[in-house]
Amino acid sequence: MGREVDVPALVEGVLAGDRRVMARAITLVESRRADHRERAQELLVELLPHAGGARRIGISGVPGVGKSTFIDQLGVDLTAAGSKVAVLAVDPSSARSGGSILGDKTRMARLAVDPDAFIRPSPTSGTLGGVAQATRESMVVVEAAGYDVVLVETVGVGQSEITVAEMVDSFLFLTIARTGDQLQGIKRGILEIADVIAVNKADGPAAADARKAARELSSAIRMLRGRGEPWDVPVLTCAGLSGEGLDEVWAKLVEHQERAKASGAFDERRRAQQVRWTWQLVRDGLEHSLRAHPGVRAAVPDLEKQVLAGELTPALAARQVLELFIGPATGEAARTL
Amino acid sequence: MGREVDVPALVEGVLAGDRRVMARAITLVESRRADHRERAQELLVELLPHAGGARRIGISGVPGVGKSTFIDQLGVDLTAAGSKVAVLAVDPSSARSGGSILGDKTRMARLAVDPDAFIRPSPTSGTLGGVAQATRESMVVVEAAGYDVVLVETVGVGQSEITVAEMVDSFLFLTIARTGDQLQGIKRGILEIADVIAVNKADGPAAADARKAARELSSAIRMLRGRGEPWDVPVLTCAGLSGEGLDEVWAKLVEHQERAKASGAFDERRRAQQVRWTWQLVRDGLEHSLRAHPGVRAAVPDLEKQVLAGELTPALAARQVLELFIGPATGEAARTL
Repeated sequence: MGREVDVPALVEGVLAGDRRVMARAITLVESRRADHRERAQELLVELLPHAGGARRIGISGVPGVGKSTFIDQLGVDLTAAGSKVAVLAVDPSSARSGGSILGDKTRMARLAVDPDAFIRPSPTSGTLGGVAQATRESMVVVEAAGYDVVLVETVGVGQSEITVAEMVDSFLFLTIARTGDQLQGIKRGILEIADVIAVNKADGPAAADARKAARELSSAIRMLRGRGEPWDVPVLTCAGLSGEGLDEVWAKLVEHQERAKASGAFDERRRAQQVRWTWQLVRDGLEHSLRAHPGVRAAVPDLEKQVLAGELTPALAARQVLELFIGPATGEAARTL
Repeated sequence: MGREVDVPALVEGVLAGDRRVMARAITLVESRRADHRERAQELLVELLPHAGGARRIGISGVPGVGKSTFIDQLGVDLTAAGSKVAVLAVDPSSARSGGSILGDKTRMARLAVDPDAFIRPSPTSGTLGGVAQATRESMVVVEAAGYDVVLVETVGVGQSEITVAEMVDSFLFLTIARTGDQLQGIKRGILEIADVIAVNKADGPAAADARKAARELSSAIRMLRGRGEPWDVPVLTCAGLSGEGLDEVWAKLVEHQERAKASGAFDERRRAQQVRWTWQLVRDGLEHSLRAHPGVRAAVPDLEKQVLAGELTPALAARQVLELFIGPATGEAARTL
């Protein structure tokens, strides 16, 4: 990115669907430089009225379930049917490993050269929160550019799935059958965020095992979820490599969204996501500001020393930090520490 | 608890090891009432110089691995050997279910009537953060009362394990073998916090499966951890019901702590825990204070409306909240949102 960021030119290029300009716009929203952040927000305010029109779908599964192959095939099916498909990724581990695993174009060989697809790997710097913010803002860019399907890929471990579930309309969890009825990578918690589950690699000799696993998982979910849920999470089988069953998976995702739209749950979910995201940014900003506060910085070494010497409880030390940062007005809040 | 909290009497009773007073002191630290929090901190400041002497051990495992039976047996073994054993618990789900599952005395039948044991169920109100704070502060109480082993029980799901790992010296993960080499409840992430792993219920006809599972898990861990780690996580087998193998598990926990003491890692870990805990309290207090701020409360409805209407980005709304809360001095922090 050059020194000068020309926001109107970025707006124009993004709205025209210019892929190079989209890439530049995303590089801008990924930057943590204060002046870039200013320009990025100006850009996003201009793009927001044009965003929001895509189906936003999270796709997760542990390494080895065939995510890239699945997305490659689903993506070309969708573009063949007339959609424009963007693939984004949230992979906080890429910051540590120095390279992005998710959203790797070489692993989505056909989609990578599809003129109606736009693939962007995970931002490779920052915390999960930072990576997620960049991906959310990138979503505004691709939607404003006219992409009507956004697939957000993440790994099936830890907090990143919950973070992605917070930015999409529907969440697809991919798994595979191992031996007999064993399932790979299903863990508690996933059932709370998955809207559709697909047992992948269900072709050839493994098909029977996959179907059996899907049936058992389906019964287990019915048992766990109880009755009266507005949506019964379907467990399907599919094969990303051959494309078998992908249309059914897609149909279920669409059905999930259409049902939610009809009931009002769709809009409600998006609204709640926007509000929670805003508060998350407030918390991140407070933390940053606290660490930079001169009075806090000056007092902290001594407070930590007293805590470590057992002269002060952590709660009392925390109270003093709060009073330095926001004054005695802290009142009630600090007194309940 | 009566209206008046007599802190000096609580200090005296706790230091004398009076179990009723200990229970009252813990009820005080569990209370969220502002005046109780004041008294609780006064109490803790007095107790702190007498605390810190126990082995603090976290014990986790999904429901069904036999945690209660294991703790019951380990506890009576330890008291028979001259220790005083406290059992605390962190179970944020107890707040929802209305009753505590962990630390249930009826499930630790022998330890519950052991005069050298003190069992306290998980606090049943509040967030994970609140429950964890109460448990940390209860630990100060039991240590000051002369208990030299503190077992902190938690469930093998989600964030609570990481939270407990943050307040103990060693972390024991209990699991069981299922069919052949399958293990119940081992998930990614646990290997980062477990210091000792035990495959429980390894008696009778299941013993061979359990030993096989332990061997394979052990190889897997060696593969994942790589060389050069200061501590090779041992994977043992045991049977809580018969008591078989519990002395080896305990010996490994003691060895883990003694090695860490010799290298200085033990003190370093405790110090780092205290500091991180302090900052966590600061964050919790800030959040509370922010939500109570009159200017913020007044502005939020309109800001949320603008975000929902797509007229404002979440980042710009967050900046405005920050400026209301801590003034334009926010500067740098807000500008990087």
